[in-house]
Amino acid sequence: MRTPPDLRALAQNAADVLARLRAKTSTTPPRVHCITNSVAQNFTANVLLAVGAQPSMTISPDEIGHFAGSADALLVNLGTFDRERAEAIDIAVASAGAARRPWVLDPVLIDRSPPRAALARELLTRKPTALRLNAGEFAVLADNQSPADFAAAHSTVIALSGVTDTVAGGTQSASLANGHPLMARVTAMGCAASALVAACLAVEKDQWLASVAGLSILGVAGEIAGEVWKGPGSFAVAILDALYHLQPAELAKRAKVS
Amino acid sequence: MRTPPDLRALAQNAADVLARLRAKTSTTPPRVHCITNSVAQNFTANVLLAVGAQPSMTISPDEIGHFAGSADALLVNLGTFDRERAEAIDIAVASAGAARRPWVLDPVLIDRSPPRAALARELLTRKPTALRLNAGEFAVLADNQSPADFAAAHSTVIALSGVTDTVAGGTQSASLANGHPLMARVTAMGCAASALVAACLAVEKDQWLASVAGLSILGVAGEIAGEVWKGPGSFAVAILDALYHLQPAELAKRAKVS
Amino acid sequence: MRTPPDLRALAQNAADVLARLRAKTSTTPPRVHCITNSVAQNFTANVLLAVGAQPSMTISPDEIGHFAGSADALLVNLGTFDRERAEAIDIAVASAGAARRPWVLDPVLIDRSPPRAALARELLTRKPTALRLNAGEFAVLADNQSPADFAAAHSTVIALSGVTDTVAGGTQSASLANGHPLMARVTAMGCAASALVAACLAVEKDQWLASVAGLSILGVAGEIAGEVWKGPGSFAVAILDALYHLQPAELAKRAKVS
Repeated sequence: MRTPPDLRALAQNAADVLARLRAKTSTTPPRVHCITNSVAQNFTANVLLAVGAQPSMTISPDEIGHFAGSADALLVNLGTFDRERAEAIDIAVASAGAARRPWVLDPVLIDRSPPRAALARELLTRKPTALRLNAGEFAVLADNQSPADFAAAHSTVIALSGVTDTVAGGTQSASLANGHPLMARVTAMGCAASALVAACLAVEKDQWLASVAGLSILGVAGEIAGEVWKGPGSFAVAILDALYHLQPAELAKRAKVS
Repeated sequence: MRTPPDLRALAQNAADVLARLRAKTSTTPPRVHCITNSVAQNFTANVLLAVGAQPSMTISPDEIGHFAGSADALLVNLGTFDRERAEAIDIAVASAGAARRPWVLDPVLIDRSPPRAALARELLTRKPTALRLNAGEFAVLADNQSPADFAAAHSTVIALSGVTDTVAGGTQSASLANGHPLMARVTAMGCAASALVAACLAVEKDQWLASVAGLSILGVAGEIAGEVWKGPGSFAVAILDALYHLQPAELAKRAKVS
Repeated sequence: MRTPPDLRALAQNAADVLARLRAKTSTTPPRVHCITNSVAQNFTANVLLAVGAQPSMTISPDEIGHFAGSADALLVNLGTFDRERAEAIDIAVASAGAARRPWVLDPVLIDRSPPRAALARELLTRKPTALRLNAGEFAVLADNQSPADFAAAHSTVIALSGVTDTVAGGTQSASLANGHPLMARVTAMGCAASALVAACLAVEKDQWLASVAGLSILGVAGEIAGEVWKGPGSFAVAILDALYHLQPAELAKRAKVS
């Protein structure tokens, strides 16, 4: 049923997504509205700015409809789970849906919190364009389904972060082997990955390709940062620098897809 | 009606404001109470500490009166617009007013959110000492008035950030041409500018001069950081280092006022 | 009544605490649940990750019981004092108590806010394992008692930060003379110290020794960062790198206990 992706073409296609993002940066940078946790907000905003997108971050129920409906993509990260935020998520997802904008769900740590898992399950019924999460979080939702089967059943893409990332759509799947071990020693790296998937969805309608592109961009930037790091502090600085300088040709060359 | 400022004197006067701030740093650093958005809090606190001021950041309605009334200046940034924060702003502005403390309004992204614009308009009637904002935000409030006319009508100063900054008081105006393009690729840079204006207002009663000083300090620090940057991550680090080391004589020499 | 600690052994014992933390890092890193202020969240999370612990940060009353009860230690920092957080603190302390987990109270700026001081006094009756604070904050609680008498009266440890740190238990006390002046020019450094004390309490039951270890680790890392700093921005980056690389033997050698 599943067509094996043309891997030689895939890295180039991911690079084309980055090229499209960059082409818009100086004129109309795609805006990603981020409902994200307070630990991750600053780093996520800087990751988006570094790659050439524009972040907005309000979570106020009174105004989030205006922001989410006019954004080019929406990120819903459950890492802070206060009551105002839950209300804001509801409005934002409705607003993005009405405006037919892509949105990414990042169900942070649902494996530790039953109320958060319940919210993630409910949000899943509202058709996120992509889910970015780790294996522990996926297990809570998956009921032993494979990523590909789960993606097919929910008309979404599963972007599963790990030592090797897996990006599974309903009909195709890829493994991404870039990245650096130190990415696990800097907070909000997964949240940043989700934001980059959202940024790519803003310029690429194919939800699977956009997810491959988003995770590849971060993985390759991490690899480049890993060539100069002296520890997790300087690594976090270097990955922002790498995101800023990353050229599509270098992404195509370095992306380890299989 | 408007006296052209003595530009040769102006850069030196801005440097004197920085010298006054520095003189107090080791003994009684001016405290700036910041009601600011959660994306900007950490960077804003570090900018204030780097330049030699003291930040405080609570937004709790239960205690903000104590903090704002005893601070040397108050910053009200609308970048996060939750309900508790709106209540806190009301108390803090009243408390600063009663204690005759200067306060700065930064109406972040009011061009994207009608409820936020409505709050900004209401706060304008409460006489902020200075408004720091960008052109899109100013247009929402200005009703086609020029910055100088608007400043005169509201007894305030308009500190307008852009490629060239404009600082317009009721009777005088200056352009500031320092800064670096990468300042637009690091989040919370505008918020930091507003915090620096507040820090300068804590040591300089002339609200126009304090605003010129605040924006010049950041612009020159950005220029210095731009001499060593490798990307937006290292630029954000370098601007904190530059703020810490910036000497009044160097500010006077580098400030491009006209 | 008070036994003078064996200082030669103490530095080595602190190093052993770090060794125990490091031994768990790659398999079961101790998780520290942090209720901390929004200014400090990101830096605190990165400090914990750098040293090899695992942070979690939710403050939602709906789920904090799950997080705090399953964590290896709890940090309660009063630096943001909103209503939801006060409710979360109540639940988290009860949950940590029921699971017999150690917890650290950091009563940030209670010298500026009577409502916050009242909350700190109430939390003190709930037996924090350690209190990490500065002299101004301690004075609000101490009623002229010495740190050692106060610690004895409340069955806790007072970890008092200053140019020289004092760690006073009911029966023993030590002074720590590491650190760097620039630690006062980076926000959330005290909050990070409290988080490190919590991380050490997760692997060391002796609450006095764990507190000595936590403050020594940060002080020595600050000293190392101070050897390469160019300003507060690069210092904050370097201290994360130093925490990551710090070896128990180096801690034992550098720790200036007396």
